[in-house]
Amino acid sequence: MLGAIEAGGTKFVCAVGDEKGNLMERIQISTTVPEETMPKVESFFKKYPIKAIGIGSFGPIDVNKESPKYGYITSTPKTAWRDFPFVQSMKAAFDLPIGFTTDVNAAALGEATFGAAKGLDSCIYITVGTGIGAGAIVQGKLLQGVSHPEMGHILVRKHPNDPYKGKCPYHSDCLEGLASGPAIEERWGEKAENLAAREVVWDMEGYYLAQALMQYILILSPKKIILGGGVMKQKQVFFSIYHYLPKLLNSYGSLPEISDYIVSPRLGDDAGITGALILARQAHQESLKKGI
Amino acid sequence: MLGAIEAGGTKFVCAVGDEKGNLMERIQISTTVPEETMPKVESFFKKYPIKAIGIGSFGPIDVNKESPKYGYITSTPKTAWRDFPFVQSMKAAFDLPIGFTTDVNAAALGEATFGAAKGLDSCIYITVGTGIGAGAIVQGKLLQGVSHPEMGHILVRKHPNDPYKGKCPYHSDCLEGLASGPAIEERWGEKAENLAAREVVWDMEGYYLAQALMQYILILSPKKIILGGGVMKQKQVFFSIYHYLPKLLNSYGSLPEISDYIVSPRLGDDAGITGALILARQAHQESLKKGI
Repeated sequence: MLGAIEAGGTKFVCAVGDEKGNLMERIQISTTVPEETMPKVESFFKKYPIKAIGIGSFGPIDVNKESPKYGYITSTPKTAWRDFPFVQSMKAAFDLPIGFTTDVNAAALGEATFGAAKGLDSCIYITVGTGIGAGAIVQGKLLQGVSHPEMGHILVRKHPNDPYKGKCPYHSDCLEGLASGPAIEERWGEKAENLAAREVVWDMEGYYLAQALMQYILILSPKKIILGGGVMKQKQVFFSIYHYLPKLLNSYGSLPEISDYIVSPRLGDDAGITGALILARQAHQESLKKGI
Repeated sequence: MLGAIEAGGTKFVCAVGDEKGNLMERIQISTTVPEETMPKVESFFKKYPIKAIGIGSFGPIDVNKESPKYGYITSTPKTAWRDFPFVQSMKAAFDLPIGFTTDVNAAALGEATFGAAKGLDSCIYITVGTGIGAGAIVQGKLLQGVSHPEMGHILVRKHPNDPYKGKCPYHSDCLEGLASGPAIEERWGEKAENLAAREVVWDMEGYYLAQALMQYILILSPKKIILGGGVMKQKQVFFSIYHYLPKLLNSYGSLPEISDYIVSPRLGDDAGITGALILARQAHQESLKKGI
């Protein structure tokens, strides 16, 4: 049995499951402060004979194994969690192999293993919700370099009819600043889920996301693009992306059929927690290898 | 002994060298039409007892080994070379293992093996010249997904003082359309190499390249960024990038010291041909493995 944590900014999902990605039991815990949230996480897992734990966490996090702060949540705006040693805290409670990556990397791993990118050695998973983030699988492995990607903060060009200044505290009108759920709400004066009937909202959303996908495609050349998160439940955004992206690329390069290339997560809201389970499986396998 | 080809849009460099990256003999051949250029390439290599050939080619090229057009130059604007079966043509003349990638991927491989990114498992090599292109090493391997990257064509925001409409036949004012050598020449009415004293030229060039680097960093998180090509011989562009990039990123994420992170190729103009030699070495090693 394996343990999995999808640590989000508003809630933690904790689950146990098997090596085949089957989730057996799960709970949700509010993300308040570590002193309150973490004991609940620990008492959930104490009930099960788990062999390893996989964590997909909100960030930024330190994923560099050479770094003294490996396993930490780092410069998050959620101050209670800033510099929280996530992996170390779990290690203290459970002497088990622990896998650690971003929430979106975990979702990419879930979709690449059992979801929309199954059988492919490359994909991107993008979440569009409270924030915008993306994880990627490149040549069969989670993309990681000097740090983990922060694809939500790339620059986009302003829509000519968009006077909104943007919501990102770092870059104002980067992609996240213009296209996240809170940006939609502030621009249009209404929560995104109540704007379903206003076509102009989703047309503009697709305009920004199509620009982002163009950059991701030209830079990473992924074999599948998966878009999840709360905002993407408005399916009309996909149609807006299908409209704008070919115009932007203008036949440069050849891509698969667009509606088969840019898709919803097949695991739905379970992409992240399933990916965390696979991360636990990988951590377990690595520990066995080291044991030999 | 190994053979290496750096196939550029204006000239081919052909060389022979050893497994350690030492180049022994080389020639340059004009890129005219395949019927003229290729026989010269072949007669150069016929003189040497080579075991494998590595090719870094201008593109777009088909690098997907499953594709029926693997080894072809595909939709290049150089019409004589469109749909030219490069690998197949070499195979017909030399029954040897052949490695095949883009010219910029070859340069990235050269720099990652013997140059500015030596010892690192990730880097980007960007050339800014007649066109703009980039190759990348990710987790120790050449980045490749549904195709090879086409990073030169990403979108950037126009400089507020730039009325120039851009030169890219596909996207007008994408990065290549605004920041390539021909774009500089058309905007300022003078060849780039004659504009060294005009500060505003290089300030604007850095403004565009800094935006591109921001996107590459947020999406790929490379451990080193290497900028080569004719335009980058104007060293003041680096200073303009060092000026704009930190403003754009605005302390988001932590990067190495910028002047050590964004650098010139240590192999100079030999990055590409050296990378092609390493590609030949890899192709030879793979053929030995398959032989076992």
